Amino acid sequence: MARYDGRKVYEIRPVKITTGFITYPEGSVLIECGNTKVICNATVENSVPPFMKGQGRGWVTAEYSMLPRATQSRTPRDIQRLKLAPRSAEIQRLIGRALRSVTNLDRLGERTVTIDCDVIQADGGTRCASITGGFCALVLALDKLRQEGVFHQLPLYSYVAAVSAGIVGDVPMVDLNYVEDSGGEVDFNFVMDDEGKIIELQGTGEDRPFSKKEMDDMYALAEGAIRQLVQKQREAIGHLFG
Amino acid sequence: MARYDGRKVYEIRPVKITTGFITYPEGSVLIECGNTKVICNATVENSVPPFMKGQGRGWVTAEYSMLPRATQSRTPRDIQRLKLAPRSAEIQRLIGRALRSVTNLDRLGERTVTIDCDVIQADGGTRCASITGGFCALVLALDKLRQEGVFHQLPLYSYVAAVSAGIVGDVPMVDLNYVEDSGGEVDFNFVMDDEGKIIELQGTGEDRPFSKKEMDDMYALAEGAIRQLVQKQREAIGHLFG
Amino acid sequence: MARYDGRKVYEIRPVKITTGFITYPEGSVLIECGNTKVICNATVENSVPPFMKGQGRGWVTAEYSMLPRATQSRTPRDIQRLKLAPRSAEIQRLIGRALRSVTNLDRLGERTVTIDCDVIQADGGTRCASITGGFCALVLALDKLRQEGVFHQLPLYSYVAAVSAGIVGDVPMVDLNYVEDSGGEVDFNFVMDDEGKIIELQGTGEDRPFSKKEMDDMYALAEGAIRQLVQKQREAIGHLFG
Amino acid sequence: MARYDGRKVYEIRPVKITTGFITYPEGSVLIECGNTKVICNATVENSVPPFMKGQGRGWVTAEYSMLPRATQSRTPRDIQRLKLAPRSAEIQRLIGRALRSVTNLDRLGERTVTIDCDVIQADGGTRCASITGGFCALVLALDKLRQEGVFHQLPLYSYVAAVSAGIVGDVPMVDLNYVEDSGGEVDFNFVMDDEGKIIELQGTGEDRPFSKKEMDDMYALAEGAIRQLVQKQREAIGHLFG
Amino acid sequence: MARYDGRKVYEIRPVKITTGFITYPEGSVLIECGNTKVICNATVENSVPPFMKGQGRGWVTAEYSMLPRATQSRTPRDIQRLKLAPRSAEIQRLIGRALRSVTNLDRLGERTVTIDCDVIQADGGTRCASITGGFCALVLALDKLRQEGVFHQLPLYSYVAAVSAGIVGDVPMVDLNYVEDSGGEVDFNFVMDDEGKIIELQGTGEDRPFSKKEMDDMYALAEGAIRQLVQKQREAIGHLFG
Amino acid sequence: MARYDGRKVYEIRPVKITTGFITYPEGSVLIECGNTKVICNATVENSVPPFMKGQGRGWVTAEYSMLPRATQSRTPRDIQRLKLAPRSAEIQRLIGRALRSVTNLDRLGERTVTIDCDVIQADGGTRCASITGGFCALVLALDKLRQEGVFHQLPLYSYVAAVSAGIVGDVPMVDLNYVEDSGGEVDFNFVMDDEGKIIELQGTGEDRPFSKKEMDDMYALAEGAIRQLVQKQREAIGHLFG
Repeated sequence: MARYDGRKVYEIRPVKITTGFITYPEGSVLIECGNTKVICNATVENSVPPFMKGQGRGWVTAEYSMLPRATQSRTPRDIQRLKLAPRSAEIQRLIGRALRSVTNLDRLGERTVTIDCDVIQADGGTRCASITGGFCALVLALDKLRQEGVFHQLPLYSYVAAVSAGIVGDVPMVDLNYVEDSGGEVDFNFVMDDEGKIIELQGTGEDRPFSKKEMDDMYALAEGAIRQLVQKQREAIGHLFG
Repeated sequence: MARYDGRKVYEIRPVKITTGFITYPEGSVLIECGNTKVICNATVENSVPPFMKGQGRGWVTAEYSMLPRATQSRTPRDIQRLKLAPRSAEIQRLIGRALRSVTNLDRLGERTVTIDCDVIQADGGTRCASITGGFCALVLALDKLRQEGVFHQLPLYSYVAAVSAGIVGDVPMVDLNYVEDSGGEVDFNFVMDDEGKIIELQGTGEDRPFSKKEMDDMYALAEGAIRQLVQKQREAIGHLFG
Repeated sequence: MARYDGRKVYEIRPVKITTGFITYPEGSVLIECGNTKVICNATVENSVPPFMKGQGRGWVTAEYSMLPRATQSRTPRDIQRLKLAPRSAEIQRLIGRALRSVTNLDRLGERTVTIDCDVIQADGGTRCASITGGFCALVLALDKLRQEGVFHQLPLYSYVAAVSAGIVGDVPMVDLNYVEDSGGEVDFNFVMDDEGKIIELQGTGEDRPFSKKEMDDMYALAEGAIRQLVQKQREAIGHLFG
Repeated sequence: MARYDGRKVYEIRPVKITTGFITYPEGSVLIECGNTKVICNATVENSVPPFMKGQGRGWVTAEYSMLPRATQSRTPRDIQRLKLAPRSAEIQRLIGRALRSVTNLDRLGERTVTIDCDVIQADGGTRCASITGGFCALVLALDKLRQEGVFHQLPLYSYVAAVSAGIVGDVPMVDLNYVEDSGGEVDFNFVMDDEGKIIELQGTGEDRPFSKKEMDDMYALAEGAIRQLVQKQREAIGHLFG
Repeated sequence: MARYDGRKVYEIRPVKITTGFITYPEGSVLIECGNTKVICNATVENSVPPFMKGQGRGWVTAEYSMLPRATQSRTPRDIQRLKLAPRSAEIQRLIGRALRSVTNLDRLGERTVTIDCDVIQADGGTRCASITGGFCALVLALDKLRQEGVFHQLPLYSYVAAVSAGIVGDVPMVDLNYVEDSGGEVDFNFVMDDEGKIIELQGTGEDRPFSKKEMDDMYALAEGAIRQLVQKQREAIGHLFG
Repeated sequence: MARYDGRKVYEIRPVKITTGFITYPEGSVLIECGNTKVICNATVENSVPPFMKGQGRGWVTAEYSMLPRATQSRTPRDIQRLKLAPRSAEIQRLIGRALRSVTNLDRLGERTVTIDCDVIQADGGTRCASITGGFCALVLALDKLRQEGVFHQLPLYSYVAAVSAGIVGDVPMVDLNYVEDSGGEVDFNFVMDDEGKIIELQGTGEDRPFSKKEMDDMYALAEGAIRQLVQKQREAIGHLFG
């Protein structure tokens, strides 16, 4: 079956990772997955949140936001309604968990790395792009610390990337764009490491419940897609993190 | 392997569903899953949110909150910090999606059912208890509309219940209490209908990534648990919704 | 004259005080005054607010909130409007003052006891029930400190309880339920100790001004009611505070 | 016994009511009670709050605020902490109730009168001064409506004024200034009409409980004081409201 | 050409500066420029904002607010909308910059002077009146520190005053009142020292762009006006700051 | 005198305007002035703010924000502190006024054009770049309305652009970068049309007051710079707006 933009069900959109996109952050990446574009900036601060003080361990956290016109119609800024959009709250918690899961916080030391993911154009899969791109920004920032002699090896366990999968017209497929996502029956997000192990998954039967079999199909598609995404990450920052 | 409280890995905690717990709501339930206790109150209003006006369809939404001392130490109220706790934001979105997924919004008509889930005591699994109990409150409220002649049959597709599963000490198990949850390596929540179909699932490798095989094990455990939970729901509100 | 529910003008509603209602707080009580139900949880923290630091004295404070469906129609949560309901602000200040007035803050030491009063069902007199029940939660929490050896005798001067009184159809009466309260002309709240001395009173001529004579009548009714309420408190926590 | 400033226990501070203090409001008054100074501005709007729409009745409400340096030390503005000071919330509710109690809301018609009470200098008794002065601003604003032909007689039942009373060094006295107020054992506020009937009273045993006898003494002192305050009001606006 | 109120184009409105207007602040001034009336209160605190700690330097800052009925129609208070009015935010930044520009912050030492400018009646030029009056309040507060021996000479470089200018009906004029301001084509504010040097200026072509020549004309008018304003300041506080 | 980056005092930084930068907005531009980069997105909505309803006129407004790492160190997001940064509040009011000043709001009809200016990299002059780039986004959006037949000619009076000027080391110069800006004594922003007429100017003696002569020098430099900036605008959108 041909998809809206001609891709196969297992095919991801073109991925482009531009490192050093913004000058000032310790790590900066523009990630483009098809028409979805996210700026991922990593900031290193020599302190940790109050609840972690004095343990000698570090923290990795994320903030996620969309420019008002990243979407078809304009979304008012959070500050207008004095309220972080619940969707953003949920997504930035996901990004933070994903990146922490591959970081050795003990070896990081009492430092916080904040990954700001600002979506400048949204065509589906923005949370996944934020994780995939955010990991690269994290690597760049950690490498800066390595250059400063804080540690010899990056305090990371593995790569981490994320991809969406879904069932559209009863057909499982990966890396949905906005049209597929909003028309689909089932919507998944997979976060995995470079060995196909799962770090986090979320799946919703938006239109109908789904079977274990369907979940297995989506897992298989996602596993293949993650492999390709990690390859793209490797091309961008593999010289810094084997 | 014996669990902390002597349960088998496939065994859920004692469930008690008290209907009519609070007098005023259209539907009210106290659900107790072991030491976790949640008041689920359903409110029917004859209007829908602005973005749904004039479509003739209804809406089901949820709010989730914990009393400050539902937990071991006191948590300041949201209003103190002028911010809905991000965790609550995430959970109430999940509850709302779960309950909407089994509701025929067209047949509900331009009405909103709000399910308030207030945790008065928290010992793990509060979001799952909120879904399982919230569904019963929803049935009670819809039955009130049926009695008023709004429809002949409840506008529901199926039962919906939720249970946690996880890997603790490398052993998959269901319905984790607080001690198991905070000590576990992997944490899952399954929302399913009464046929074992999945409505939503979320899984996190909090301590390490997990394999497809482990996910399958947890799914199997959850499926069995959901069957028992639906049975408990049936005992509480089965006379109203076959 | 017979009242709505058959009570005499001097008769209070049935009172039930369940201690240890919630497991985690240092003191926990469910107080039921007729159909009004309030969970009162006491939390002890080893610090005081900034304005009291370093004086060696303690602090007792209260927070008051209602579940959205404690009432006939649903009230949006405070966090929805980013604003503590002014009525709640007023009531929790009253509860705090009442409980502080019977506490020897010097002997308490640099500790804060916070009494969370969460109304789960409201049928009039919720602020009075919060004070009467909150005092019991306070006793339970202080007794825990006594068991830990912080002091030998509870740092309390006397019992404190509260009751409403009002004029309904030109008849003074005590402990108004919601129907009486909303239909009445004059509304009073009395906070007293176990010797009938007044700790706080508030009276409003909601529908008309009232005379000194009427105030005296209400005082007499309230004095008798408080005696009964203190008796109920004594049954619940008298073994801890003679 | 001589008071701090030489007054007798039954003596109020010098009162000065300046009408037309600010040019733009429909009614404007500067009230000075000793060193306490409050600007009371009345605004008339041809609409009512949502909950009163379509009933043909009016509304009277109040807002109360203090300039940051109305007091000895600077108090941050509410907007700084994004929170109306709870004390202000409580006081403005009291002022609103007091002024509504003497207003015939039916005859006012669907209009809202808002009384802004801004304390520019605070030396005790600011809430009472706000009520006494606020009533004058209300009369001025209503008179403007009368001049416009909205009604022939002001829609008011009676005068209303307020005064504090308290027990300082075991001596009951009226109209406490800041030094007396903060050093006193018992603190009362009486709101009365011009016949000595009570519209609202609040009394707190800040330092110790008090007896019925003490309350009676304070009532007697307050009654006399209110008579003097109403006389001052009459001098300021008596030509408009007999 | 005669202006609305008969003034010449170069003529400022009558200025009255009342020192010691409020009792408690370290410096207090009521400034009246025609019908514009602003209370300027200066508070001295022995600390500085976090970003200045430990540098041994002081800080001067300002807050600006209007009473709800300082204007023709009532403006809701900031706290009502949980948002500092953007116009106020802009103005208080201007006042702060203007007063800091003439203060020797090194000699002030680690102290903060906060100038609260509360407009009680607004007839145009409130930001300028706030600067002109705020400077006097600052002098009074600094003089108090001098009396306490903190320094021998006031840590001030020069006088600072402000005046508006504008083009109304193609005629440049100074010190616009509300009617002129809202009907004018171009609106300027000049902040200058006592030698006619410019500390800050803001100019807006509200109705049309303006030429360099017109700007020069307004500068000339403003320079003359500032001279008169400084003379007024000198009369009020010149005995303290030569 | 050579500047930090070798420019002459009258020389602006390289300007690059990329139209159609983001896909969805009605007008989208990336403007780069040296290392300062701002995304300007224009949104057209068929409604106006409440205060303008029913007048048949349109509105142009702006919002300004910086990504957290647009700067050397990370700035927390506004939503974190529940407060629009006062600096942003001031700047977005300026941008809005500048763009409205060249727009014929009558001919625009009851539509709102919102210009979102999001700074992704800040090296001085961000407010000026926002105006210069925002004008181009406005033209693109208005042209879209023209294509839809709303009007035949763009409802614009002229071009508008903005540039900073300042005195650094006693030397007047234009288009300051961050290093020059933060080290300078005087800081100006000029908003002008394509005939060198002034639409708005703001000047601050950050380090010392400045003379009329210095202001004239800066005006001359700015006038020349604006001419160059308008030329850049013309190259980008001149085919749409003569």
